[in-house]
Amino acid sequence: MILINGESKEHIEISDRGFQYGDGLFETIEVRDGLAVFLKQHLERLNSGCRRLGIPFPGTDLLSLEASKLCRRGTSNRAVLKIIITRGSGGRGYRQPDVIQPTRVLSLHPYPDYPEVYPEQGVAARFCNTRLGLNPALAGIKHLNRLEQVMARSEWNDASIQEGLMLDANDHVIEGTMTNLFYIKNNSLYTAALTQSGVAGVMRRIIMTISADHGLAVIEHEFAKDELLSADELFVCNSIIGIWPIRQIETAHFSVGPITQSIQSWLNRFACDDSMEAGCSK
Amino acid sequence: MILINGESKEHIEISDRGFQYGDGLFETIEVRDGLAVFLKQHLERLNSGCRRLGIPFPGTDLLSLEASKLCRRGTSNRAVLKIIITRGSGGRGYRQPDVIQPTRVLSLHPYPDYPEVYPEQGVAARFCNTRLGLNPALAGIKHLNRLEQVMARSEWNDASIQEGLMLDANDHVIEGTMTNLFYIKNNSLYTAALTQSGVAGVMRRIIMTISADHGLAVIEHEFAKDELLSADELFVCNSIIGIWPIRQIETAHFSVGPITQSIQSWLNRFACDDSMEAGCSK
Repeated sequence: MILINGESKEHIEISDRGFQYGDGLFETIEVRDGLAVFLKQHLERLNSGCRRLGIPFPGTDLLSLEASKLCRRGTSNRAVLKIIITRGSGGRGYRQPDVIQPTRVLSLHPYPDYPEVYPEQGVAARFCNTRLGLNPALAGIKHLNRLEQVMARSEWNDASIQEGLMLDANDHVIEGTMTNLFYIKNNSLYTAALTQSGVAGVMRRIIMTISADHGLAVIEHEFAKDELLSADELFVCNSIIGIWPIRQIETAHFSVGPITQSIQSWLNRFACDDSMEAGCSK
Repeated sequence: MILINGESKEHIEISDRGFQYGDGLFETIEVRDGLAVFLKQHLERLNSGCRRLGIPFPGTDLLSLEASKLCRRGTSNRAVLKIIITRGSGGRGYRQPDVIQPTRVLSLHPYPDYPEVYPEQGVAARFCNTRLGLNPALAGIKHLNRLEQVMARSEWNDASIQEGLMLDANDHVIEGTMTNLFYIKNNSLYTAALTQSGVAGVMRRIIMTISADHGLAVIEHEFAKDELLSADELFVCNSIIGIWPIRQIETAHFSVGPITQSIQSWLNRFACDDSMEAGCSK
C-alpha cells in the first residue's frame, strides 16, 4: 500500500532526485491499531529536516491526512508507516531546480517479527568496522544517504547479534545501525551529542524528555568505547522497537538494569497518554 | 530514453534500495557521434565500485551492449549517458537481501550547454562551506549518496561562478562539487589523495596516466587552501567537460598556463586514439 503525492502507485520516476542522489529524508513510524504512534513528533522532525536541506515541507495537515488514510487500510493491529520526502525531479546535476516540487511517498509495511522477549531480556550487539563520516551540515538528519548503515549492517550475518554499534571517524561511539544508543552510569543517562554525525531519532528525543521529566540527569556528550563498556546499563532504541536493553557487546556482559526498566515503563505510559490525546481509545 | 534491466521504462519500484538508501553507484559518460567515450574505463570503475559495495557487477558485455543500443538512438552528435547500478529491492531495513539482484538503469540525456570557451579561457570557482565527510570505506566511490554535493551546489546562484571547491572535515581541499581538482606547481601536477573522501573520477585517472606518460611528476597528497592558492596553474575536470582551467577563486586570479594546455592537447589525442581503438572512424 503506497501513496505517491496522494495517488496509489508503486513506482517513481527515474529522474527523482531521491533516486539520483539520495536527495531527501524519511521517517519510520510504528502503527498501532490503525494509529501512527508519535506522528506529531515524527512530522516535526521531518519538517526540521526539510528546512535544513531546503526542501519545502508538504505540511502537517496533508501528511497526517494521508498517513491516517493509509494506516486505516492496514489489516494487522501493528504495522510500520514509512514517509519519504524527496526534492522531486529537475535541476541540473547536483544543482536543485529553481522551483522545488517535492515528492512524498507514504507506504505501509508489516511490523517486523522481532522476538517479544527483546525489550525484557535484552539483545547482543557488536562494534562495526564501518565508520560514520563527520559532517555537521547533515548530522542528525534522517536523510536518504544511508550507505554507511548498509555497509555496517553487511558486516555480520550471525542471527544471535541484533545490532551493530557505529563509531565515527574520531573513535567516538555514536549509535546503532538502526537505533540510537544510551548508557547509564552513576544514575545519569548518557547519549552521543550527534553534532558531527548520526540520526537524531524521535524515540531518542522522547526518552531524553521523559527521563529529564522524571528527574534523571540527561547528558549528551562525546564518548569512546571504553567509557561505554564501563557503563552500569545500556540500551538501544528506535520508533519501531521501543527500547532494547543491551546484555552483551562482544565479550562484555551487562544486566538489564532498574533505570532502563523505569524508562521503559515511563515510555509506555507516555505513549498511552499520547495516543489518548491523539484520539485512540487504548 | 531509459533502459531498466534491459527494458524500455521510465519508472522504478519504490522498494528499490537505490531510492530507499542511495544504495548504489553511477557513471556519467560523454557520448560523441553515438559512441560512449572512455566506456571501458567507466565500466572498470563501476566494476571496482560494485566490488567495494558488495553489489554484483552486471558485466561489461551486457552493459556495453545496452550502452551502445542507447547511444545509437541519440539524435544529436553529443549526449550524456548515465548508468546507475543499485542493490535492487529486498532485504530487511539496511540489511541487504541474501540474494542480491541488482537494478541497472541506463539513460541518455542532452549534452549540457556549457559555453565552448570554458576549456580555453577558464572558469571562476569559489570555496563551499559544506564539507565532505571522512569515510575511507566509501572514499573514491561514485556512489548514490550525494547530499553533500547537492548542499554544496545550493550555496550559490551566481551564474558567473562555474564550480564550487569542497574541503573535507580536516580542512584539506578535495575536489569540486562535480569535478576533480588539479594544480600545477614548479612543473609538478598535484591532486587530492581521496583516501578519506571524494570521487576518484575516470577523467582524473586518465589525466594522471597521460601526464605521467609525458614525463610530468604526478603527486597525490593532502593540501590546504593556502597551498592551492599559491599554485602556478589550476584546473578542474570530469568526463563531460574534459578540462576547465580555473582563472579565479574568489579574489585570487590565475592564468591559463602552458602545462594545463599541454595536458588538454595530450587528452584530446588520447581520446582520439581511444575512440579509434573502440571502432570510431573519427
